[in-house]
Amino acid sequence: MDLKLQSPETIETMRKETREAYEAFQAMKLQLNMARGNPSPEQLALTMPMMNTISPEDSLITENGEDCRNYGVPNGIVEAKKLIGELLGVPADEVFVAGNSSLQLMFNCFQIAFTHGIAGSTPWCKQEDLKFLCPVPGYDRHFAVADYFGLKLIPVPMQADGPDMDMVAQYVENDPSVKGMWCVPVYSNPTGVVYSDAVVRRIAALKPAAKDFRVFWDNAYCIHHVVENPVTPLRITDACKEFGSEDMIYQFVSTSKVTFAGAGIAAVNMSKANMAQFSKEMGIQTIGFDKINQMRHVRFFGNAKGVTEHMKKHAALLKPKFDVVIEMLEQELKPLGLGSWNVPQGGYFISYQAPKGCAKRIVQLCKEAGVTLTPAGATYPYGNDPDDSNIRIAPTYPSVDALRKTMELFCLCVKIAALEQIK
Amino acid sequence: MDLKLQSPETIETMRKETREAYEAFQAMKLQLNMARGNPSPEQLALTMPMMNTISPEDSLITENGEDCRNYGVPNGIVEAKKLIGELLGVPADEVFVAGNSSLQLMFNCFQIAFTHGIAGSTPWCKQEDLKFLCPVPGYDRHFAVADYFGLKLIPVPMQADGPDMDMVAQYVENDPSVKGMWCVPVYSNPTGVVYSDAVVRRIAALKPAAKDFRVFWDNAYCIHHVVENPVTPLRITDACKEFGSEDMIYQFVSTSKVTFAGAGIAAVNMSKANMAQFSKEMGIQTIGFDKINQMRHVRFFGNAKGVTEHMKKHAALLKPKFDVVIEMLEQELKPLGLGSWNVPQGGYFISYQAPKGCAKRIVQLCKEAGVTLTPAGATYPYGNDPDDSNIRIAPTYPSVDALRKTMELFCLCVKIAALEQIK
Repeated sequence: MDLKLQSPETIETMRKETREAYEAFQAMKLQLNMARGNPSPEQLALTMPMMNTISPEDSLITENGEDCRNYGVPNGIVEAKKLIGELLGVPADEVFVAGNSSLQLMFNCFQIAFTHGIAGSTPWCKQEDLKFLCPVPGYDRHFAVADYFGLKLIPVPMQADGPDMDMVAQYVENDPSVKGMWCVPVYSNPTGVVYSDAVVRRIAALKPAAKDFRVFWDNAYCIHHVVENPVTPLRITDACKEFGSEDMIYQFVSTSKVTFAGAGIAAVNMSKANMAQFSKEMGIQTIGFDKINQMRHVRFFGNAKGVTEHMKKHAALLKPKFDVVIEMLEQELKPLGLGSWNVPQGGYFISYQAPKGCAKRIVQLCKEAGVTLTPAGATYPYGNDPDDSNIRIAPTYPSVDALRKTMELFCLCVKIAALEQIK
Repeated sequence: MDLKLQSPETIETMRKETREAYEAFQAMKLQLNMARGNPSPEQLALTMPMMNTISPEDSLITENGEDCRNYGVPNGIVEAKKLIGELLGVPADEVFVAGNSSLQLMFNCFQIAFTHGIAGSTPWCKQEDLKFLCPVPGYDRHFAVADYFGLKLIPVPMQADGPDMDMVAQYVENDPSVKGMWCVPVYSNPTGVVYSDAVVRRIAALKPAAKDFRVFWDNAYCIHHVVENPVTPLRITDACKEFGSEDMIYQFVSTSKVTFAGAGIAAVNMSKANMAQFSKEMGIQTIGFDKINQMRHVRFFGNAKGVTEHMKKHAALLKPKFDVVIEMLEQELKPLGLGSWNVPQGGYFISYQAPKGCAKRIVQLCKEAGVTLTPAGATYPYGNDPDDSNIRIAPTYPSVDALRKTMELFCLCVKIAALEQIK
């Protein structure tokens, strides 16, 4: 059933029905914020036993003999480096464990490149008209960091298997002003795409025109599966070994959506050469991050298996939420051919492609009925979605019931917006 | 008794005796690192009950209804802002509570000034030949931050009541390339000097030539008294109100030497105008700091009185250590007129002024007998103490007995170095 082929009477009836349904929603005075990928209280509760992990009588001495309570150990305690290394399949000494924010580590890498330059290159603040590749739709906070340092954000379309690598290679290998690229390789924010092995290998094989080009590989969701038998994508670090391009990658990870969004631990994995510079420059700004929280995490999980077991508990909470979103979209919008969406195997988002020109209106309609979504356009550099089509649905925080209600409203708003487009 | 007036025989005898005593020390194979102002294990143990402050059953919802476990609340939880505000005598909404490192907050302020400029001024990265005032002797990590951003470090002599304010005013009020000044107003690192009210008032009254001039007021030791009735210096924030210069000050504080050096909380206090910019720019790099650790601190202390009570326990551990250092200096060096030192009322250091040209040699001699001190020169910009005289003694970490032994060695090394100077 294509709306555009319906009779004026049918359209009129649908308009009336959807308007009435919408008014009923407004009367409910919903108040729900789904703008961000926040874990739910139930997810956060999974980690509360961590509060008992360290008692006042416990030793906080690392296996290297360092006191977690005192200054020092700027790259993180060895136990935490091993844990993260095990999860990422990289050596512990190529892991730097920091505070609670991987975004801050990404920012640190930008700051170093901007103020001091990467590996002896001219600092970005002394180069002109630099560019940064941004697969779209993508993550607004990524874009904001690159924009903050004055780099021009270049959108690169995401495809079913990762970013358009022909376009990426064209930019990276020919234009020395292209200094880097954002990647969320597993359950990409918001598309849920997992980069194929071929794409990972093409990224590793890039021969950048700029020697200070870096791939910011934000592996935020590498263990955030909602299905039982997830794909196991090729590791970028393994691919880079084939091509000798280890220095091109900064890989970020955190436990923000594993333990606590507000009090997890974050880490960056990089080659020894990159690590030498990074450690040196970070040493100017801090005498070390919170090592007690690092130890708390190590003791809570024990090892990487402990982490993956913990993630199954998250999956059990998240699966019904992803299901309800897909179910409602299939039920309400598929018959009308209104938009398209991904069915992610993990991560935190469902990416909805609305009929062209409808996204802003849908978000506005939801807002006016009490549901705040991620602003339309936020998934594009400068907030500019040329099709005004992409909407990021963040299903993790609300309860299943609230989410079902919200998705009813959402689908209704899609219909209203689509009906408004018909002259 | 002046060494230079002694007979060659007396000098020869002293040389022999000190050399023998030194060899005896070397035979002991001491291994002690006093390079840094680290709290001792006994001090760290004082805070271990904090590990029980939050149990798995506890709510972690702030009084504003925010969940400490989730994302958000970028400026810190209101409970922590009130606690720090109470300690500093400033409004809670002029406090930004962050992670575990005040040094990092200082770095953040530099970074913002460098990459984006303060309050609309040209970013420092686009201005040439900038300068930063550094009271000397001072703190090497402070100097390193300003140096990292390419500012020329200008030494300003510390006097008994604070930095030489005539020199400061001369620079600040006439030279627009002077962009800031380091201050440790209470128990200055390493001199132990407390700025007098007159000095605080003169700082507040400065009329900088550069409108992006800022005083980095590192109030690291504001509650770190070792005496019972400490002086209560004029608050810079109160002084600035007199002169309308509130925007000129960034005030930093942390609990690194109150709770855990590795896992405390840090904060910056600034005017509302400064805070607006700072919050906005910090919002690019993080979605918020570790709020659980902020809440842990709030619950552990309850209020500012809880903090000052806790500090008395530190004082009880530190007083005997400060005493032993002073006692040994008085006993061993005073009769020979070898050098001078301060008798601090708090803080973490004792500043020793060796006979000119002896500091490096003393540190080397201590090192070769197994005791690592802060490198001579470290308390001056670029490691350059023109008199080769200042040595920072950090008495907090060793036990009283080990410290007595170390000070024996230290005094011996001073004598050897002084004797070597006599032709």
